[in-house]
Amino acid sequence: MKQMELAVIPGDGIGKEVVPEALRVLDVIAEIHGGLKFSSTHHPWSSEYYVEHGEMMPKDGLSQLTQSDAVFLGAVGDPALVADHISLGGLLLKIRREFEQVINIRPAKQLKGIVSPLANPRDFDIMIVRENSEGEYSSIGGSVHSGEDEIVIQNAVFTKKGVSRVIQYAFELAQQRSGRVTSATKSNGIVHSMPFWDEVFKEVSTNYKNVQTNSEHIDALSAFFITKPQTMDVVVASNLFGDILSDIGAAIMGSIGIAPAGNINLNGKYPSMFEPVHGSAPDIFGKGIANPIGQIWTAKMMLDHFGELEMGTLLLEAIESSMQSGIKTADIGGSSSTSEVTDEIIANLRN
Amino acid sequence: MKQMELAVIPGDGIGKEVVPEALRVLDVIAEIHGGLKFSSTHHPWSSEYYVEHGEMMPKDGLSQLTQSDAVFLGAVGDPALVADHISLGGLLLKIRREFEQVINIRPAKQLKGIVSPLANPRDFDIMIVRENSEGEYSSIGGSVHSGEDEIVIQNAVFTKKGVSRVIQYAFELAQQRSGRVTSATKSNGIVHSMPFWDEVFKEVSTNYKNVQTNSEHIDALSAFFITKPQTMDVVVASNLFGDILSDIGAAIMGSIGIAPAGNINLNGKYPSMFEPVHGSAPDIFGKGIANPIGQIWTAKMMLDHFGELEMGTLLLEAIESSMQSGIKTADIGGSSSTSEVTDEIIANLRN
Ligand SMILES: CC(C)[C@H](C(=O)O)[C@@H](O)C(=O)O
Ligand SMILES: CC(C)[C@H](C(=O)O)[C@@H](O)C(=O)O
Repeated sequence: MKQMELAVIPGDGIGKEVVPEALRVLDVIAEIHGGLKFSSTHHPWSSEYYVEHGEMMPKDGLSQLTQSDAVFLGAVGDPALVADHISLGGLLLKIRREFEQVINIRPAKQLKGIVSPLANPRDFDIMIVRENSEGEYSSIGGSVHSGEDEIVIQNAVFTKKGVSRVIQYAFELAQQRSGRVTSATKSNGIVHSMPFWDEVFKEVSTNYKNVQTNSEHIDALSAFFITKPQTMDVVVASNLFGDILSDIGAAIMGSIGIAPAGNINLNGKYPSMFEPVHGSAPDIFGKGIANPIGQIWTAKMMLDHFGELEMGTLLLEAIESSMQSGIKTADIGGSSSTSEVTDEIIANLRN
Repeated sequence: MKQMELAVIPGDGIGKEVVPEALRVLDVIAEIHGGLKFSSTHHPWSSEYYVEHGEMMPKDGLSQLTQSDAVFLGAVGDPALVADHISLGGLLLKIRREFEQVINIRPAKQLKGIVSPLANPRDFDIMIVRENSEGEYSSIGGSVHSGEDEIVIQNAVFTKKGVSRVIQYAFELAQQRSGRVTSATKSNGIVHSMPFWDEVFKEVSTNYKNVQTNSEHIDALSAFFITKPQTMDVVVASNLFGDILSDIGAAIMGSIGIAPAGNINLNGKYPSMFEPVHGSAPDIFGKGIANPIGQIWTAKMMLDHFGELEMGTLLLEAIESSMQSGIKTADIGGSSSTSEVTDEIIANLRN
C-alpha cells in the first residue's frame, strides 16, 4: 500500500468549499487504484486564523508541514479581514519560499466540454513553467526623497542558478511532451536581466538537441496565447512573466475557476505544494456555487507528481466528461452546484 | 490654412510600404477639410541606412526632426541587417527618450468589419495609457560574479514625477470618455514600485471625483482583456505592463496589423511621434500584402493630436467601411492588396 500524507490548508473563502470536494475525489481515486491511500492533516490557517492569532500560521507551522508528501492548498486571502500582502506573504508566499518551491507549473489546455472565449479554440495544450523564487519578485528596493521628488527603485534579481534550473526543468518536461520550449523574454526593452535570461536559455538548449526552441518577447507572446495558442508546448518564463501568462492561459481555457498549479520543490528537502490558480472569491463564498474543477484538476497534478500518471489521466477524463454532460457551475455557463459537479466527476470515475 | 509639417520616417520592411499609403490618405483628408495642409520631409533612416553609415540616423538627426509638428514613423528593425537592440535603441527608443515622449497611447477598440479572435467580442473601446520613459525599462543594472555564480540585477525606476504625470494624463482622458480609469498594478508580488504606483494613483484620483477607478493586478487584468474587455475604458500602466496590455489589445482587436500608437510629448518642447504597433515584418515585405490600416489609424491618432477630431472620426469610419465591404488584407481574412485597401478607404472618404 502506497500511503500519501497530505498537509491540507483549505485557507479562505471558496478554498474551504472546494478543498473537501477534491479530497472526496481523491478518496475515490484511491479506492479505484487499490494500492494507494491518502491520509490528511488539516490546518485551519487563514485570514480568520490571523484575526484570532495575529499571524497566518503558528510559529512552528512550516515544521508541521515538512513531513507531508505534499501540501494541498485551497485559496488564501480575504481583504475584508487582512491586507493581501500580509495574508499572501504570511502563508502562500512564505511556503513557496521556505520550502524552496522554485518552479511553478501551470497547464493551459483546451478541455472538452468547456466554452472557450476564443472564437476558434484550436486544440491547445501548453505547460507554463514559471520561475517561482526570484526575478521581479525580489523584496530588494526602496525609495529616496519624498513628496514630489520621490524616487522608488525596485530590483529584479536573476541568478544563474535560478534561471538555469527553471529552464532545464522546462527542457526535461518538453522531452516528455511535444518537444518544444518557448522562452518568454523582453531583451529589447529590459536590457540587463533579459539578455542574461536569453543567454542561459541558449546555453541550456545546447544540451537538448532534440527539443525545438524559440524565444518571444512577452508582449508578442501574450498576444500569441490568444491568436495561436496551439503552436506552444512548454513555455518557460520568469516569475512575473509566468504569472501573467498563466492568467492569460486560464482565461483562454474558459475560466480561472478550472486552472490548477503546482509549486515544485526540486531538492527533495521539502514537500511541493498544489493550489488552484483562482483566489478565495469572497463574493461567491458560502453559496455552494464555486467551481470545484480548479481544485480537482490540482489534485490531478498532485497525482502526476506522485507518479500516478494513469490515475491523473483518468481524473482529467472524468472532469472533461462532467463538463460534456453539461453538469457545470455558473462560471462556465452551467447552473450546477459545487457538489453536483463533484458527484458527477466521481460517477464518471466509477464508470 | 493650417499647415502641418510631418517628419516622415518609413523605416524598415513594410514600414516603407504602408507609410506612403497613409500619406495618400492624409492628402485626401486635407483636400476634404479644405483648410488643412500637410507637408512632409522624408528621412531614410533605417537598418539599411545603418549598414551604409554605421548609425541609424545622422548625428544631427534629432535636430532635423525638432521643427516638425509630428514624427510619422513606419516600423524599425531588420534583424537580418542589424541587431534589434541597435536598430530600436538607435532610432525608435532614442526618439521616444530624447523627445521626452513620456506617454504612449494605444487604443484597443472593436472595429466594425473585422473578425475578432474572441467568441463574443462585445463592443470594447479601451485606451491604454502607458508610461513611456522609465519604470522597468531603465538601463540601470549589471552583474556580479561569473559562470555558475553569476547574479544579474535589473533596476526598475519609478519617479513621483513620471508616475503622477501618466496617471494624470489618464484621468484627463477619462473625463473626455466614459469616465473610468483602471490602474494596472502588481503590488501583491512586486513590493516596492507597485505599492508606490498604487499610492500615487490614489492621490491623483482624489482630484477627479467624477471619474470611476479600479486597480487590478496585471495578471488578472491581462485575463480581463480576454474575458470582459467591454468593462474597461482608460487603462493606465507602467512601461512594461502597458507594453504587454497593448499587444493583448491588438490581439483582441483582430490583428496587430491594424493597431496604432502615439508617443506623446507633454511639455511642448519636441514633437510627438506616431507609429503603428506592428513591426517591420520582413517575411511579408515587398509583396504588397501588408495591412495599411495600422499606419492609417495611426494617422487618425495624429489628426486627433492636431485637434482635428472631426477628420479623425471620418477617417476611422472610412477604415471600418473598407473592412465591412470585405476589402481586407490577408492578416484579417481577406485577399486584397495594400493599395486596394487604401484605395477603398479613400473612396469611402470621398463618399
Ligand atoms: C521594440 C520594443 C522595445 C517596444 C517596446 O517594448 O516599447 C515595442 O514592443 C513597443 O511596444 O513599441
Ligand atoms: C497572489 C500573488 C502574489 C500570486 C503571484 O503573483 O505569484 C498569484 O498571482 C499567483 O500567480 O499565484
